[in-house]
Formats: sequence, C-alpha cells, structure tokens
Amino acid sequence: MSCISLTTDFGTSDGNVGVMKGVIWGIAPDAKIADLSHEIEPQNIRQAAWVLERQVFYFPPDSVHIVVVDPGVGTARRPLAAQIGPQRVVGPDNGVFTPLYLRAEREGWPLEIVHTDRPEYWLPEISAVFHGRDIFAPVGAHLFAGVPLEALGTPIDDPVRIQWRRPRHTSEGVQGEVAHIDHFGNLITNIHRDDLTDLGEVEVRLGEARIRGLVHTFGERQPGELVALFSSTGYLFVAVVNGSAAERLGAQVGDRVEVIPL
Amino acid sequence: MSCISLTTDFGTSDGNVGVMKGVIWGIAPDAKIADLSHEIEPQNIRQAAWVLERQVFYFPPDSVHIVVVDPGVGTARRPLAAQIGPQRVVGPDNGVFTPLYLRAEREGWPLEIVHTDRPEYWLPEISAVFHGRDIFAPVGAHLFAGVPLEALGTPIDDPVRIQWRRPRHTSEGVQGEVAHIDHFGNLITNIHRDDLTDLGEVEVRLGEARIRGLVHTFGERQPGELVALFSSTGYLFVAVVNGSAAERLGAQVGDRVEVIPL
Amino acid sequence: MSCISLTTDFGTSDGNVGVMKGVIWGIAPDAKIADLSHEIEPQNIRQAAWVLERQVFYFPPDSVHIVVVDPGVGTARRPLAAQIGPQRVVGPDNGVFTPLYLRAEREGWPLEIVHTDRPEYWLPEISAVFHGRDIFAPVGAHLFAGVPLEALGTPIDDPVRIQWRRPRHTSEGVQGEVAHIDHFGNLITNIHRDDLTDLGEVEVRLGEARIRGLVHTFGERQPGELVALFSSTGYLFVAVVNGSAAERLGAQVGDRVEVIPL
Repeated sequence: MSCISLTTDFGTSDGNVGVMKGVIWGIAPDAKIADLSHEIEPQNIRQAAWVLERQVFYFPPDSVHIVVVDPGVGTARRPLAAQIGPQRVVGPDNGVFTPLYLRAEREGWPLEIVHTDRPEYWLPEISAVFHGRDIFAPVGAHLFAGVPLEALGTPIDDPVRIQWRRPRHTSEGVQGEVAHIDHFGNLITNIHRDDLTDLGEVEVRLGEARIRGLVHTFGERQPGELVALFSSTGYLFVAVVNGSAAERLGAQVGDRVEVIPL
Repeated sequence: MSCISLTTDFGTSDGNVGVMKGVIWGIAPDAKIADLSHEIEPQNIRQAAWVLERQVFYFPPDSVHIVVVDPGVGTARRPLAAQIGPQRVVGPDNGVFTPLYLRAEREGWPLEIVHTDRPEYWLPEISAVFHGRDIFAPVGAHLFAGVPLEALGTPIDDPVRIQWRRPRHTSEGVQGEVAHIDHFGNLITNIHRDDLTDLGEVEVRLGEARIRGLVHTFGERQPGELVALFSSTGYLFVAVVNGSAAERLGAQVGDRVEVIPL
Repeated sequence: MSCISLTTDFGTSDGNVGVMKGVIWGIAPDAKIADLSHEIEPQNIRQAAWVLERQVFYFPPDSVHIVVVDPGVGTARRPLAAQIGPQRVVGPDNGVFTPLYLRAEREGWPLEIVHTDRPEYWLPEISAVFHGRDIFAPVGAHLFAGVPLEALGTPIDDPVRIQWRRPRHTSEGVQGEVAHIDHFGNLITNIHRDDLTDLGEVEVRLGEARIRGLVHTFGERQPGELVALFSSTGYLFVAVVNGSAAERLGAQVGDRVEVIPL
C-alpha cells in the first residue's frame, strides 16, 4: 500500500530521475514510485521543504519520500533517513525536512533520525556529484523493502534546521508572507486557518491590493476577480479566478501579507 | 492489465499530481498509473477533451481515466464517473468528456454516467479547491479496485456537453479548423480521413499556405518542406518536415482549414 | 527486477508518452516503466544517444529501453531490438544506439541486433507517423514479457551508426568538446577520466576560460566559482558552483575543450 516519492531539482531532461528509479527497482522491484516535483529551483531547499510539508502526509502510511535538493553533495554534510510520524524520508541533512520535524513536534509524533553511514546499503561505487543515484535511491529502496531504519545508520538528534518563518500576531492583526507561488500563479501564504481563528471577518492586504472578506471557492466570484481563500491544506492564499494573481500583482515569494479584522 | 491515467492542468512543479498517486495507491495498491498530460492550459477544457479523445481508446479495456481540469471546483458542478464503451472516466461534469460521449454514440457503445455523490468513496475531509486529491483520485481508485460504477453514485443522463465543432462540407470542399498544436508544432485539424473519402486529390489551404496533395509520411519530402498528412488517429494535419508548422505559418487553434479537390 | 525505460522527443503535453504506457501494460501488465527523458530536442538523435549512454547501464539487468527519436518514421528505416551486454533496447535504426554498440565492443559484451520485422508483435494497425505507439511500445513490451529477441525479427549486423566523436591527444594535451549541457547548465564534455590518466595536474580551457586544477566536489569552492570536475559517469565537466556555467560562459554543444598539463 505504501509507495516511494521523489522530489529533486534535477529537471526531467537528462535522465537523472529515471536512473534513480532503475536503481530503486533493482533493490525493491515492487515499489510504486510517484514523482512529487523535479522542478524545484536549483538548490532551493526552502521550496522543496514547502512541497514536502503540503504533500507527504496524504500518502499511505510508511511511504518513503526521497529528496535530492543537495547543494552540499560530496561534502561532509550527512545523508539522513528518518521516521517522521507515519511517513519516512531519505535525503541530505541540509534542513529540507525542517517543517516535517516541526509538524512531528506539534503533533507529538515519533521522530527518529539516522545518519545513513552504512555503505552496504549504497551502490558499490559512490560518485562525488550524484548521491541521488548512489546513496539516496538505494537507501530509500532498502528502507522501503524492509530494512529497519536503525540498521541504515547511526541515530542522531541534531539534524540541520532552516529558519521556518511563522506568521506573527501584531496589534493590527496577523502578518505573514508569500511562501510559494504555484503553477496557476496563486500566492500561497504561510498563514494557516488556525492562525486566524479569533479574527472574524477580515481584509487581506498584499502590496497595494486590499481584499475584503474570504471566499470558500473560486466559484463565488467572477473570472478575473481577486479573491482570498484557504488552500486544500489550510493555508491562506490569494488568487485571481481563472487567472494568475502572481502576474496581476507582480508578487514574489517573501512579500508581506497582512490579515486585518474588519 | 487495465491501468489508470491522469490528465490535469496542474503542471508538475507543486506535487499535486504526485499526491493524487499517493491517494490512489492507498486505495488501489496495484494500480499502474500513466500520466497523459499535466500541461493542459489552466482551465482549458477543450484541450483536455482533445487529448482524451485521441488517446484513451488505445488503453487496455476497463482502464480508468481521471481528469482534473476543473474551473468549477467547489461549486455545484457535479463530479462524474462513466463507462464509455471499453473505457472508464472520472472527472468534473463540465463537458470535458464530450467527444467521448460522441464517440460512444457514433459507435453504438454502452454509455453509463453517474453523479458520484457517495462521500464514502471520497477522502474523509473535502477541501473546496482540490477535488482532484479529495474526490476524483479516491473515486477513480475505488472504481479501478472493483467498486461497480452504480455504487459510486446516482445515474444521470444529462451530462454537460461543450460545442464540439465538426468540419462542414461546402460547395468548394470541406472546411474545418486547427484543433490542436502539438509539441512539434504540427497543426492538427478536426478534419478526419473519413470526411474526405469522396474528394480524390486535394489541396489544403491554411491562411496563405497552399499544399498540393497529401503525403503518407514525412520521409516523402525534404526537411523544411510544408506537408499535409493524416495523424496516427486519422486526423488531417499540416507539418514542416523536421520543423514547426505553427512557427512557419504563425497559425493558432481555431484557424480555418480548407480542403479543396484538385 | 528489470523494468522498461522510455526516451522520446515527444514532450509531455499531448498524451503520446502516456498512450505508449497504456499499450505496454496491455501486453506486459507487470512492467514498471521509468521515463528517462521526453525532452530530447525534436529529431536530435545525438542528444538521445548521450542520455542513453550515461544512464542505461545503471538499470537492473535485462531492462528494456525503448527509444523514439525517429525523424525517419514511416520510411524504409528499420525498427530494431537489441541485446547490448546486460541491457536491451528497442528503437529506430538511425544511429541512436551508437555509443551503446561502442561500449559493448569496448567491454567485449555480447551484441545481438534484430530487425523487428514480425508484425504479429506490433499493434494490429500501423500508422505512418507514430511507430512509438504502434511498433516500438508493443515490441518492447513483448520483449520484456519474455518473447526471445530472435523471435521478434531477423538478425542484422549492419546497424546504422552516427559519428561519435572521441577526444584526441595533441602535442599540448587532450582536445575534446562540450557534448551536453545539463539542466543545471553544467557543460559536460566527451573527455573521460580515462583519457587523462597520464597528465598529472591540468588546466582546462574552454573559450576564454582557464580553470587551473580539478576539484572532486562542488563544496571545495565558493558559490559562483568556475570549477572543473568529473561527472558521476566519469566525464570531465565545467560548472559554476550553485550556478550555470552555460550561462556564464555562453557555451554551446560542440565547443572545443582543451586539457593541458601544468
């Protein structure tokens, strides 16, 4: 029932994703493999973290999520595997799993992390530039195929974390930022539904834009109108019905977003 | 032998396609899943319909084609599942299946459609903006896994249809239009081989271009030449050998195409 | 344990890759299928050959690699299937397998090639423009499912080969060229580690750029620095740490690269 997912910054033109699947099936012939994204911007750890946080907890329990956004490949940065509540991950120790650690801590889930330092679970020959193929794919495949986490390496409790900005409550309301711009040009913020529980009716401010009230669905407004609503994972986002809010507002990741009670 | 296919306008950068696969495998662990296209232009129902019509009838019998091009997500538009001859589909009731209904009617195939209104086959929690993950993926997975169509919802016989333009016979010949521009820049028309059976030798006219005679394969002309021939599904198309007709002619979807007997 | 891979110039927007998977699963329901690349430039046989050479020998033994970069589709060019050492391939006889033949000859591997001229292993109806769906996918699926190579067609020993440039030793050092520009903008040359064994410390010259010494990993230099190192398959490449060498140097495939002893 469980499966493997892949998230990389490799693009899909060079065959580097396909070869990881070949390596996985050499070890775990029954693995179903889903591509989460291979269009993470080169070395953009934060963007990969965002995709993981939104998606992995919808996967069947014990799925293995292999992540290769790895500017430190070939250096002393550790390769990791972890059990994070119901899901498992494999990837470099560069902070890409930060929001998953935070989620586990918030939910009181078990969080077990190992430095995967047992070469018997890697390919026989390790290049200095493609640990996705040589380390992360085989380790993920062995984990999927039944090798226990603790057999893959040495337990650690000091994984690298990146700063993961949360919105803050101000005298006026709640202030957050644009965390991600999706394929449709929707501006997805780091402000969760739970951050707004006490505010009642609100106005959303982003640059010059002022959006009065939230809608539940796109269909409540006409094509072309600017709306604010909650994403399928509970985050506030700003959209243009059947259009691109990113284009309309010229907004970028990191732009400030304010939610003010009316 | 059968499998599942996915067609969406999600792009492949945000993980929204991958998470649908995770949801499917949680319900139907043995499902093979093929991506048909995730590069449908946002909300372009007609383009998705074109891809489906050309491809789905080459799949093994009883495959399930899940389609999420869904500008009405979260509104009263119905979610559907259908048996259309040898194939099965799941998606929003917005006309995206129109050419498949037409094909079934032309061929005299069984056509059975249900409004999938049984929440026991959805995810437990339904967002207002991502029915691909919350409704269409689980319904498609249950259908694939053996739940009968009629168990998934209430039969209907009034699905939404979009206008699906057919070429027309004029005093001069046959007049159709560019229906799709493919990855190579080939201009694929809505004029089928069967529409031209009585014409003999023809000239194809598209904008200023005049192409005398049809070829059977690209190899009959030199690289760079403009040719007209039949696609692998029987539709007339205009191409540049080893080049892009769309670029050469500046043509667009909807442009008029005429076929005139010589 | 083995699987199927697909390499085409189809792009992923039209459903032509997905339909090949449907055809394969109709014949070989258990096949795992990995996409190597569908972003080969239209008709760029050399680029497809490059991807194949770098990737296929990492796949489980007896995997079947189906390749559809096929400017001669519909002409007299032969469809082929071959056993090339531990791997198997299916595709057009246009030279796309040249570096795999060379590898087999270098390694002393068995090399067995057949012209797949037995229509009982094709789809019942063959179009003139989509042999990927009608011939290569079903032949590859039958081969994967256990049909012996020799049953698929007539043995041949004169497959088409393209010129496959190797670097040459000059009075100054070794002279090769940029063979591929990858997703990150790395400039991958045709100069292999084995071509440089006698040179000691070197300088790499590419256009105006002079890079003194090779590094083992990106991490040895600061972001933004120009480096030369060996790829995960042993080829010399020029990169900008966390950046794009292609952009920095304005380099293109075919540009001369020299390696000079210091």
